[in-house]
Amino acid sequence: MIRRHLQQVAQVLREAKSVVLACHLNPDGDTLGCALALQATLEGLGKRVITLSSDGVPEIYRFLPGAEKILTSTEQRGFDVAVVCDTGMPERIGKAKDAVFSARIVVDIDHHVTEGAFGDIRIQQPKAAATAEIVYRLLKVMDVPITPAIATCLLTGIITDTGLYRYMNVSPTTFRLSATLMEAGASPAQIAEEVFERRSFPSVKLLGRALEHIRQEEDGRLVWSYLSHEDFAELGATDEDTEGIITQLRAVRDSVVLALLREVKPGRVRVSVRSRDERIDMAKLAEKFGGGGHRLAAGFWVEGNIAEVKQKVIETLREWMHCSTSTSQRA
Amino acid sequence: MIRRHLQQVAQVLREAKSVVLACHLNPDGDTLGCALALQATLEGLGKRVITLSSDGVPEIYRFLPGAEKILTSTEQRGFDVAVVCDTGMPERIGKAKDAVFSARIVVDIDHHVTEGAFGDIRIQQPKAAATAEIVYRLLKVMDVPITPAIATCLLTGIITDTGLYRYMNVSPTTFRLSATLMEAGASPAQIAEEVFERRSFPSVKLLGRALEHIRQEEDGRLVWSYLSHEDFAELGATDEDTEGIITQLRAVRDSVVLALLREVKPGRVRVSVRSRDERIDMAKLAEKFGGGGHRLAAGFWVEGNIAEVKQKVIETLREWMHCSTSTSQRA
Repeated sequence: MIRRHLQQVAQVLREAKSVVLACHLNPDGDTLGCALALQATLEGLGKRVITLSSDGVPEIYRFLPGAEKILTSTEQRGFDVAVVCDTGMPERIGKAKDAVFSARIVVDIDHHVTEGAFGDIRIQQPKAAATAEIVYRLLKVMDVPITPAIATCLLTGIITDTGLYRYMNVSPTTFRLSATLMEAGASPAQIAEEVFERRSFPSVKLLGRALEHIRQEEDGRLVWSYLSHEDFAELGATDEDTEGIITQLRAVRDSVVLALLREVKPGRVRVSVRSRDERIDMAKLAEKFGGGGHRLAAGFWVEGNIAEVKQKVIETLREWMHCSTSTSQRA
Repeated sequence: MIRRHLQQVAQVLREAKSVVLACHLNPDGDTLGCALALQATLEGLGKRVITLSSDGVPEIYRFLPGAEKILTSTEQRGFDVAVVCDTGMPERIGKAKDAVFSARIVVDIDHHVTEGAFGDIRIQQPKAAATAEIVYRLLKVMDVPITPAIATCLLTGIITDTGLYRYMNVSPTTFRLSATLMEAGASPAQIAEEVFERRSFPSVKLLGRALEHIRQEEDGRLVWSYLSHEDFAELGATDEDTEGIITQLRAVRDSVVLALLREVKPGRVRVSVRSRDERIDMAKLAEKFGGGGHRLAAGFWVEGNIAEVKQKVIETLREWMHCSTSTSQRA
């Protein structure tokens, strides 16, 4: 069925004259890499292409070929086709929504499974480690060349969404596709350096502060940390600089649930949560707070100062861990 | 030529009744993974096998199947065959040397190129990202099954020697072999978790402290940090907990030379230095202080309290950077 859908998408893209591509909010290497791989392909086919990322392009992803063309919004409407990469939730594309839904045909390509209908053609393949794996298949169905630029975009999606091949989503297909993309001109060493070894000085100090604030609870199964608005102000850091901190929390021995709370604006706290235990569903927890994500990684916002929010969120997390594991025991 | 050598090795191993396997000093995932993959294979063929690692097995590698059988030394001599994994320098196998050189045939398998003759059959393949890639080829030539245990040992070698596929040594072959080893039963997620995600709580807090102390000089080209004896005492950490901190300093954008100073005992400071620039030779710098290492990574000890040592070492590093780069410009 996936293959038939890919053929449909290939056909509507071939017939389109104008295409709008959209990334999700708080964009990562997969949503940006997929959109830019499609941008390069469609421009190569002579289409008029606009690529939108409501939240812009984080500095660590500006090396991606074509990233300089990405816009945060457009007044243009009436595109032939829209392609949304790496999210199944229309609210996750922010300001890009109006341009996307002005298109005659809306396509959604995602490796997450989300409920609800969105898009005229929807490709969801949860077995893929990254949406980049699906976009690669689409490009093969379209029978277009995989240039070094396209290979770099797609391999960036794979490398960032697998945390350098360390997550459970990695499959033999992920490795074989990585080999193919290397042969097409992508360099994993260059991508890893750009994404993981170009941290700004404030971001490194911010990581230090977060690790100094680290807490262990529930016999070490819950590991969390926080950053106050004062921390950001003192170190000259922004929320973009928190990228990667939660991965460092994960490195603590015996940790099962990880949380990072940061007061990005006074009275407004962003929370990222991760789980290593399938039974402890982070997407469902995030929904309680009006957020979203997937089972093992999710996020949400909470109003309040950091002290209030810390207490509330950590209390809820503790309860959630208890009832998730005890429910499963009954099941 | 490699293939002919592999066939020779396969034959002498098939004919052997007793084999001694040796890992290098300060053992890593590649030397241990290769020795244990060979141990499992040869035991499966009914050979008597002894595996030696003079420096034992670091805690993060104890999950490797068969690791519990590794000895630090043996009195046994007169083995039919010895196989040294992942080093071409006999002095790098420590106490294992006597047992190894008592063997009728000594085989050396390595992906580093070192000078001098060592071993009756020597396989050096610098294109391989890890010695594990060469051992895999040997097992295929021997036509033995790749069990899940063997696959785990070999994939650990690849993952640790490529820093999770981030170093320049990764090739399409590395990725394709990783796919094959996954299909044979190895889990990259499990290996990455065992090796990289079992940090102790004090070590994470110590990393936080080091990052809070971070300094940038020479237009950001020199990045350094320090830990005082009070930091270790307050956080309940030891020098073993500093493992990996310098890698985090490397992640700072534009950094060329990295240094980490820690006052392990009051008045005794250990210094690690790294360079990304071949012209700035860290081994030579370390020699000035009575230490040693390689061009891009070295270490030494300095007597004095952390404040004095900081001033002295950083001043020397600055001068060293200046004269190393200006000498090359003249050359």
